[in-house]
Amino acid sequence: MAETNKQVVLSRLVAGKPSLDDLELVEGPVPEPREGEVLVRTIYLSLDPYMRGRMGAPEAVGKAMVGGVVGEVVASNAAGFEPGQLVCQYVGGYGWQSYGAVAGAQLRVLDPGLVPITTALGVVGMPGVTAYFGLLEVGRPVAGDTVVVSAASGAVGAVVGQLARMKGCRAVGIAGTDEKCAYVVDELQFDVCVNYKTGDLSAGLAAACPDGIDVYFDNVGGTVIDAVAGNLAMGARLSLCGAIAEYNDAPGREWHGPHLSRFIHARRATMRGFNQGEFADRHEEALALLATWVRSGALKYKEQVVVGLENAPAAFLGMLEGTNFGKLLVQVSEDPTR
Amino acid sequence: MAETNKQVVLSRLVAGKPSLDDLELVEGPVPEPREGEVLVRTIYLSLDPYMRGRMGAPEAVGKAMVGGVVGEVVASNAAGFEPGQLVCQYVGGYGWQSYGAVAGAQLRVLDPGLVPITTALGVVGMPGVTAYFGLLEVGRPVAGDTVVVSAASGAVGAVVGQLARMKGCRAVGIAGTDEKCAYVVDELQFDVCVNYKTGDLSAGLAAACPDGIDVYFDNVGGTVIDAVAGNLAMGARLSLCGAIAEYNDAPGREWHGPHLSRFIHARRATMRGFNQGEFADRHEEALALLATWVRSGALKYKEQVVVGLENAPAAFLGMLEGTNFGKLLVQVSEDPTR
Repeated sequence: MAETNKQVVLSRLVAGKPSLDDLELVEGPVPEPREGEVLVRTIYLSLDPYMRGRMGAPEAVGKAMVGGVVGEVVASNAAGFEPGQLVCQYVGGYGWQSYGAVAGAQLRVLDPGLVPITTALGVVGMPGVTAYFGLLEVGRPVAGDTVVVSAASGAVGAVVGQLARMKGCRAVGIAGTDEKCAYVVDELQFDVCVNYKTGDLSAGLAAACPDGIDVYFDNVGGTVIDAVAGNLAMGARLSLCGAIAEYNDAPGREWHGPHLSRFIHARRATMRGFNQGEFADRHEEALALLATWVRSGALKYKEQVVVGLENAPAAFLGMLEGTNFGKLLVQVSEDPTR
Repeated sequence: MAETNKQVVLSRLVAGKPSLDDLELVEGPVPEPREGEVLVRTIYLSLDPYMRGRMGAPEAVGKAMVGGVVGEVVASNAAGFEPGQLVCQYVGGYGWQSYGAVAGAQLRVLDPGLVPITTALGVVGMPGVTAYFGLLEVGRPVAGDTVVVSAASGAVGAVVGQLARMKGCRAVGIAGTDEKCAYVVDELQFDVCVNYKTGDLSAGLAAACPDGIDVYFDNVGGTVIDAVAGNLAMGARLSLCGAIAEYNDAPGREWHGPHLSRFIHARRATMRGFNQGEFADRHEEALALLATWVRSGALKYKEQVVVGLENAPAAFLGMLEGTNFGKLLVQVSEDPTR
């Protein structure tokens, strides 16, 4: 094992908009797997908006950024694992590094014959289960409801809208370019998609949702949730998944908007924040269904793969600005299935 | 019937802070009860924060202000009603006038031997059922929870905190004077009450709620809900009943604060707006329990009675500023039970 372990570490605490200087590529020894652990060579690293939160955590400074990974077992000190297996650490993953020593219990073994291994970080991974439980358990749509989702072409949003359609709902996306909107309607088969950067979003939503919004799945916060709040149907449910438009707000300069509570009260609505971790004991159930739907073609997905761990920081910063299109992955080493 | 019917009518549409000029005392003929209707002489008129909303409704201009009333039957064209009975129209009442002709089906007959008739407009009326369902069904407290309620000495808040104590919760009030806070703790037996006008409310709540806030019952909105939002426990429930601190905001100058959705998401909390009308089919159940608790002394209440319909406008404007102390009533005519 002459290889070194490349890592992207958080070089300092970030408040406000992060920059390339906040993330540093370093090299160190490849970790040794202890008893019960498996050494994994990273093939794909997942980039997700929640990672921005980690950059504001003092305990994260000087450490590799966390993140879900798909990789190949190089060596195993854990029962049930052997070199050559493809595995995924999809929640709380060892992250932005080329090797990781991971407890076997934290790994899922992947079957590349079932669905592509990249999907374990997207539609059949953490973003998929986030969409599944956040829509079905928190949003609780019923047939005929109008379901609106922001970041509709993203890893989570794309699944939300397609699941809403499966439930017999009207699916309305919100995205930031005409190209993304066209994809959401033409490929993902949403009923309509509104570009929040062109025109008045509130008016656009009013036109797209003549009976009001029954379920809103929020990935972005910011001005988008304000526009949604003014268009809620009575008894609406708001499922709060994330707020990427607000993560880079400087401390003391956080987003200020009209009080959402006014709209929640006026429409007798329910707003709930959730995290996929609340549903951990049901992840396998959701992952099995998601894989089935991907295989059958009922669930479509789009990936954007950036090659090279050294390019992860720029790709991540771009994602915070919405420049990615589809699920963003970093290919860290060779994929034996391609 | 040589009497005339005095009415307080909304003289114009109100945006922003209402003034005495917005409400006009007029006189007209006493209404004639039609078939199925009862003529009621108003004894007490209830003043409640929700009435502010009516002042912004174009269809309300030129009409008597709505509101719950307790009165005496003067004449009846409805089966089951006869002169001399004491009755209450506690939801959607005929309001700010000395007489009303009301469909019998909208009236509850009161037994003055059970609880004082004034309570039909407060603790055993609409404010009581609002507290009952808003706390128990929306807030869903469990024993050991910390329950915070704003406007804690008010008609709704006082009941919320006492019910929370009955459920084995820690009850924390928020009120606007030291006198109100002393009443809330000494008489209503809340565990603690924080004066939001003296000192930093967020710090005060942090000290009063060392394990965070599990349930918040909101009557005020404004800066108070912002301070609460920063002190939520994981999985908190926010029950939105009203937002008196925001009702007088001028259009286009509505309350702007940090996005409540950030806090809701971070604490995996649930915020729900409700109205007692959602629970109309269970009002009788709640009213019976509330009356029982009032009789037994388990549920205490405080009333402030202003005499004379002509004094209702000033009393109402004062209530919007928090100058009342306890359930605010206007005595419109003689109370035969006193």
